[in-house]
Amino acid sequence: MCKPRLIPSSVLRHIKPRPAAPSPRFTPLSTTPAPASTTQIRPLASWWSSKMPPSDVAKHLQADHDHIFENNRKWAAEQKVKNPAFFDKLSSGQEPDYLWIGCSDSRVPAEQITGLGPGECFIHRNIANMVPNTDLNVMSVVNYAVNHLHVKHIIVCGHYGCGGVKAALTPQDLGILNPWLRNIRDVYRLYETELDAIEDAEKRCDRVVELNVHEQCRNIIKTAAVQQSYAQNQYPIVHGWVFDMKDGLLKDLNIDFVKVLGQIQKIYNLTG
Amino acid sequence: MCKPRLIPSSVLRHIKPRPAAPSPRFTPLSTTPAPASTTQIRPLASWWSSKMPPSDVAKHLQADHDHIFENNRKWAAEQKVKNPAFFDKLSSGQEPDYLWIGCSDSRVPAEQITGLGPGECFIHRNIANMVPNTDLNVMSVVNYAVNHLHVKHIIVCGHYGCGGVKAALTPQDLGILNPWLRNIRDVYRLYETELDAIEDAEKRCDRVVELNVHEQCRNIIKTAAVQQSYAQNQYPIVHGWVFDMKDGLLKDLNIDFVKVLGQIQKIYNLTG
Repeated sequence: MCKPRLIPSSVLRHIKPRPAAPSPRFTPLSTTPAPASTTQIRPLASWWSSKMPPSDVAKHLQADHDHIFENNRKWAAEQKVKNPAFFDKLSSGQEPDYLWIGCSDSRVPAEQITGLGPGECFIHRNIANMVPNTDLNVMSVVNYAVNHLHVKHIIVCGHYGCGGVKAALTPQDLGILNPWLRNIRDVYRLYETELDAIEDAEKRCDRVVELNVHEQCRNIIKTAAVQQSYAQNQYPIVHGWVFDMKDGLLKDLNIDFVKVLGQIQKIYNLTG
Repeated sequence: MCKPRLIPSSVLRHIKPRPAAPSPRFTPLSTTPAPASTTQIRPLASWWSSKMPPSDVAKHLQADHDHIFENNRKWAAEQKVKNPAFFDKLSSGQEPDYLWIGCSDSRVPAEQITGLGPGECFIHRNIANMVPNTDLNVMSVVNYAVNHLHVKHIIVCGHYGCGGVKAALTPQDLGILNPWLRNIRDVYRLYETELDAIEDAEKRCDRVVELNVHEQCRNIIKTAAVQQSYAQNQYPIVHGWVFDMKDGLLKDLNIDFVKVLGQIQKIYNLTG
């Protein structure tokens, strides 16, 4: 069932010397040189080099693949040892209390930083933890989580140093990313006076991260699903948090859910 | 920075006796009764009961909140003990080799089942691991991961018993979820003869899960970002996997990336 496969021979056949990798149009999160590898964090330089012979590339691609299947077998075996009924329970259904809407960034692994296990948290992750009201993807997630899974908490979690937010604060054309990042620029516009007054660029960016979380929480509260469920059940409650990679801690933005709901409903009331 | 807050008094004020929870319009993943709680998996019945007095609801909401912040402080402290430089490295940047597109289902925690740590895997999760070509959310994720992060592998991972797939195979009106689930019905239509021939409903559903992963891999291969990057760099490679909750193992669908790329490019070639 889980037998690792070789990288297909059709891939190997096509591997040939390549030109140097194209320069990224923006550096997503940092220009700091990669530190040395540790067993804790994968080295930032990855294994790839433009000078690497094709056979080595193939070996690394295969090793990447095998690495995950090996990890997976180990994980599954460990769960069975800890609790022989683990997978029977897991496959019988889910009733998570939390919906997490976070960033796709590889350094914000939702379950690890919250200590939540399988079955506890329904997850949506996209670039910069956005909740645009016309986005069918995230709107379907919110609808499903509230109306069908009856989650008690919805968490929007941003993170300082967010590449999406940095990109949105940079005057450049990023093609298909432009309309997505536009939503972040729209947040800036709402708080233009406050943000313009922050002289330090990094601090200004971090404040946009926080304000963006506030606004995405508002976007969730504006939905019919949340307003109607709360009116009937007193849940879900919407929380805004920010993850700080410098110390690994979550910061609670202390959003007063009921107060914001009241403000929202002056214009966006959908409970009638 | 991470001080847990109380559930706002404005929430507590509004908590009052509630009517019984509305019946879900469909049971997302199983109708099997919840098994007893263990320390491994949160009890399926959650803490909520329609007969619970409001003060108890407030206590549970607060406990849910505190639980996560407690877990988070513990996790952060553990990382520092294991590697004092952990967060310095983490905050210096990301260069993940993998993009994971998986289901939002709480029982498929991507990093846990693959053993990947912070910084290793860029993540997008939505209902039924879909990659619709008009969806700006997932298309932005693919574009960012390929063109800016230069990921080497893109994994689409479905799972047997998927609630989204089950819902799409049920003749019912699910409101805003209809257009999202329509994409799964479109997959059924492509393989109608094969699927109609499977008499057992669960087996048919599981086969739709697999075929859906195949088709979402194709959708990724159809993008300009993937075709152009592969032509230049021989990466990323696209993989289709399915997670089986009954044993915790990943199953490789052995998609031959180069073969599929060739098939796709007869019609969808965007490398010119």
